[in-house]
Amino acid sequence: MIYCMYYPTKTVGKKRGTVMIYTDNAATTPISPSAAQTFTKCLNEVYGNPSSLHSIGQKAAEVLFEARQTVAQCLNCQPREIYFTSGGSEADNQAIRSAAHAGKKKGKLHIISTSVEHHAVLHTLDRLKDEGFEVQLLEVGETGLVTPQQVADAIREDTCLVSVMYANNEIGTVMPIAEIGEICRARGVTFHTDAVQAAGHLHIDVSKQNIDMLSLSGHKFHGPKGVGVLYARKGVALESLIDGGAQERGKRAGTENIPAIAAMAQALKEACSEMDEVARQETAIRDRIIQGLSEIPHSILNGDRDKRLPNNVSFCFEGIEGESLLLMLDEKGICGSSGSACTSGSLDPSHVLLAIGRIHEIAHGSLRLSLSKYNTMEEAEYIIKTVPGVVEYLRSFSPLWKDKVSGKNPFILK
Amino acid sequence: MIYCMYYPTKTVGKKRGTVMIYTDNAATTPISPSAAQTFTKCLNEVYGNPSSLHSIGQKAAEVLFEARQTVAQCLNCQPREIYFTSGGSEADNQAIRSAAHAGKKKGKLHIISTSVEHHAVLHTLDRLKDEGFEVQLLEVGETGLVTPQQVADAIREDTCLVSVMYANNEIGTVMPIAEIGEICRARGVTFHTDAVQAAGHLHIDVSKQNIDMLSLSGHKFHGPKGVGVLYARKGVALESLIDGGAQERGKRAGTENIPAIAAMAQALKEACSEMDEVARQETAIRDRIIQGLSEIPHSILNGDRDKRLPNNVSFCFEGIEGESLLLMLDEKGICGSSGSACTSGSLDPSHVLLAIGRIHEIAHGSLRLSLSKYNTMEEAEYIIKTVPGVVEYLRSFSPLWKDKVSGKNPFILK
Repeated sequence: MIYCMYYPTKTVGKKRGTVMIYTDNAATTPISPSAAQTFTKCLNEVYGNPSSLHSIGQKAAEVLFEARQTVAQCLNCQPREIYFTSGGSEADNQAIRSAAHAGKKKGKLHIISTSVEHHAVLHTLDRLKDEGFEVQLLEVGETGLVTPQQVADAIREDTCLVSVMYANNEIGTVMPIAEIGEICRARGVTFHTDAVQAAGHLHIDVSKQNIDMLSLSGHKFHGPKGVGVLYARKGVALESLIDGGAQERGKRAGTENIPAIAAMAQALKEACSEMDEVARQETAIRDRIIQGLSEIPHSILNGDRDKRLPNNVSFCFEGIEGESLLLMLDEKGICGSSGSACTSGSLDPSHVLLAIGRIHEIAHGSLRLSLSKYNTMEEAEYIIKTVPGVVEYLRSFSPLWKDKVSGKNPFILK
Repeated sequence: MIYCMYYPTKTVGKKRGTVMIYTDNAATTPISPSAAQTFTKCLNEVYGNPSSLHSIGQKAAEVLFEARQTVAQCLNCQPREIYFTSGGSEADNQAIRSAAHAGKKKGKLHIISTSVEHHAVLHTLDRLKDEGFEVQLLEVGETGLVTPQQVADAIREDTCLVSVMYANNEIGTVMPIAEIGEICRARGVTFHTDAVQAAGHLHIDVSKQNIDMLSLSGHKFHGPKGVGVLYARKGVALESLIDGGAQERGKRAGTENIPAIAAMAQALKEACSEMDEVARQETAIRDRIIQGLSEIPHSILNGDRDKRLPNNVSFCFEGIEGESLLLMLDEKGICGSSGSACTSGSLDPSHVLLAIGRIHEIAHGSLRLSLSKYNTMEEAEYIIKTVPGVVEYLRSFSPLWKDKVSGKNPFILK
């Protein structure tokens, strides 16, 4: 038996000693002990408002200053190019609206993005459509990739923004953002990347990768929730999403969330320093799980086999409902996801799985297991041992599966 | 000698045993021990994403559900009328933009507010002016009050929103919001109140007070930073400020900040249960300080003597610069403010002090001391003993003061 690797199982209402494997790190990660320590220390000791002139306020201002420097170092940019937000969604919203509205002033109303972006990007783009922008979503290949050539071909004289995610949150596909960045820079188009899923797993260097704007979310790399980063290169016009006080150089009103900012900086620093080792470990576990689950009949791996987040496993299993699979796996101590946590509860299949060509019936039978540095090979073996039986059991009840076996509706897999 | 009441002085880089009195609670408050405990427990134990179906996610969803119930109970509304935001500024922005845009759909473009609102309100209104709204800022009386009659007189057929703060953040004046709410309800106009400074000091009952929308900030009532509340009465149209996932019933995208939300709920519950006792204690300390500082020659109390936050002391001292006063008081262990922390660093005098009729030279010499339940009468005595000497010392260097004494520029005070 494998025991909870990180937190005692009692925290989730299970008896001690039962299995509890957390493989939903794309939804959120547990905070690292060092980030938690930073948080708690600030929460209790650095309670001032950084805008206050007195020493308690100035102590908070110091912590803020240092956190900004740390984050800037991790991304290879200047501290003044870092804006702290309440999370990745806010950063995405602000980046995209800013670039679009700056473009509008020059009569540029064309925006390029992809069909597999997170909803924080896609829904922001929907809002811009209502404002008169023309949004062109590039179609992705069967592994979820867009090519630099697609971007180059799509850019027009009136293109004001290209927004392409670094890595997909559902299927783990890693986009060629450095090449896309190079094209955008050469053509004078602002390039934004939602790097929420990449941080902590893939190297980020906004300078080498020609990135103008980039979004991060603290709780995706073992930092706290409720805090994120918007990097905006010097010279890129930024508009505030939240008006009020003059915080963040007038671009984000509201008292700075010092404990969360400091803890996020600590988590990012830790993630960057451990990245190569963690990625190696995650990749080995990921590949073992992919190998094991590929043996399930009528299963298909989603996403690119090679250009893939080290921590992402994503499958579709024909003839089952992803939700039932998740609940049964939870019973067996495996916490996974069907895709994006942000759209749970929706009956629509994932837009990402549809975009890579999965038909509705297949897209519904998805399983995403997203790893972190706290997962082990022992857990991988338990997963490989457990999932096939659950899939088989669910198929035994499934009308979809019976239709397939009887030849009435054979679907497409294998 | 008085010692730090709450945190060891080492946290602000001072030697142990020196005075450290924190009277800048309108800028931000230290988190209460019970809220800090809730925060730390959630940070370490409830790390799931409430949107995830598995038990770790569902545990987080439970905590979120309970926090929403707690906050709703404190405000006397339904849990589904509570939306968690990243803070008071975000809540103000969302409330005002939502009501304005809902009004616009009906051809109503007139908004009523006051000249003494927080910048989170005023700057949001500025943005709406650019969108074609007509914003009418009611002038306040010399104590910072607007009257219900002023609101009644200002409401027109095309008025879509009245936004009047519950209590002023700089001068502590408490507005007659229940009466204003009644008028708005009778006239069918949406009423929003920024209750950021009121929470924890004054009773809030959105039902009895006829409030349609209300903003709170966690860190102003001994909760954590980076979290706030927007109450929006059922039936009031709300638009999202941050687009993306379906969190907060589609009105606020981004993974819910569970530890902060739970800790804020705990802090609010604690504040509500202790309110009468805390207000009594604060009022006694406040009145002692007001009495003491009133004896400084050429000083004037800002704000209403009676309709006043129990924790607010605000004075103008003729002939000095508020910034120098703050720095010298800090040296002597008193952490105060000149006005709003959010506008520190600005050379412009406070818009609130100008609105109540202070001339520029007087408005610059302001001191706000904002109390909390952790302040003591002993601290009040130290403040009364210390401030007059500092004011006198600063006047001895002040060209403004010399002009006054020589009769060249006598100003207006006494």
